[in-house]
Amino acid sequence: MVDILHRVGITASQDAVYQALTTTEGLAGWWTSDVRGDADAGGVVQFRFRFDDSPDPDGFDMSVLEAKPAERVLWEVVDGPGEWIGTQISWDLRTEGDYTIIMFAHRGWQEPVEFMHHCSTKWATFLVSLKAYVETGKGAPAPYEERVGDWR
Amino acid sequence: MVDILHRVGITASQDAVYQALTTTEGLAGWWTSDVRGDADAGGVVQFRFRFDDSPDPDGFDMSVLEAKPAERVLWEVVDGPGEWIGTQISWDLRTEGDYTIIMFAHRGWQEPVEFMHHCSTKWATFLVSLKAYVETGKGAPAPYEERVGDWR
Repeated sequence: MVDILHRVGITASQDAVYQALTTTEGLAGWWTSDVRGDADAGGVVQFRFRFDDSPDPDGFDMSVLEAKPAERVLWEVVDGPGEWIGTQISWDLRTEGDYTIIMFAHRGWQEPVEFMHHCSTKWATFLVSLKAYVETGKGAPAPYEERVGDWR
Repeated sequence: MVDILHRVGITASQDAVYQALTTTEGLAGWWTSDVRGDADAGGVVQFRFRFDDSPDPDGFDMSVLEAKPAERVLWEVVDGPGEWIGTQISWDLRTEGDYTIIMFAHRGWQEPVEFMHHCSTKWATFLVSLKAYVETGKGAPAPYEERVGDWR
């Protein structure tokens, strides 16, 4: 098992960060513009990435296993690329001074495949996008996201 | 043991990327403006981060264990924060279409401490800075780097 781990600090309240993680409007502000479903506890969220005008865009479906207001969110991937299915993504929030700290983990990868390296880098850029979105109202969700290479 | 893994693709030659990893001028263009020493095989490089006008800035000393032109660089941390000492940072380059792909690894962390989460995120932003530096001539080295939170 291999994990992707990240940490960011956002100058906003834990509640503001939590809203950006548990509403489709919030998620569309920093990860991908195409978010559907129910992002609260017990829901399933569909994230889609329309890069090439495909009628059937790639993406992920996440089951929201936990959503503890202003403190923790846990998703499990129920559909998407094979390497992602069954992996879990956790968001733990706490306050340090003027910052809400996010401890992020994407756990359960079977192998440290090249796609995992790519996803590690992309998660970091999307966390920076989340930070900008919550602090300024303007993130960089797909398809306007930071490019990191040939795999976007 | 826990590893930080990333992947980026840069629209430039492997040699251009290699130069940005093995010369003090190149390294100063994307990681930190204060780089000294010898960044080629057998050398030791000093990276310093002057965030608060401290007369004794924090940083890392890296021993260059391998430098295979245009293909691979391997550093070992010989001085710096305790969690970093003895860890190794590898850069493997290859060409895919119009891109030089970097497979990056920072291996040998004893524990997935909070500082490691932070460093994982920071490495990603510095890899994006490296990409920008090689592609456009302008990166975002410290102290002008992308901020990810209270730990910079």
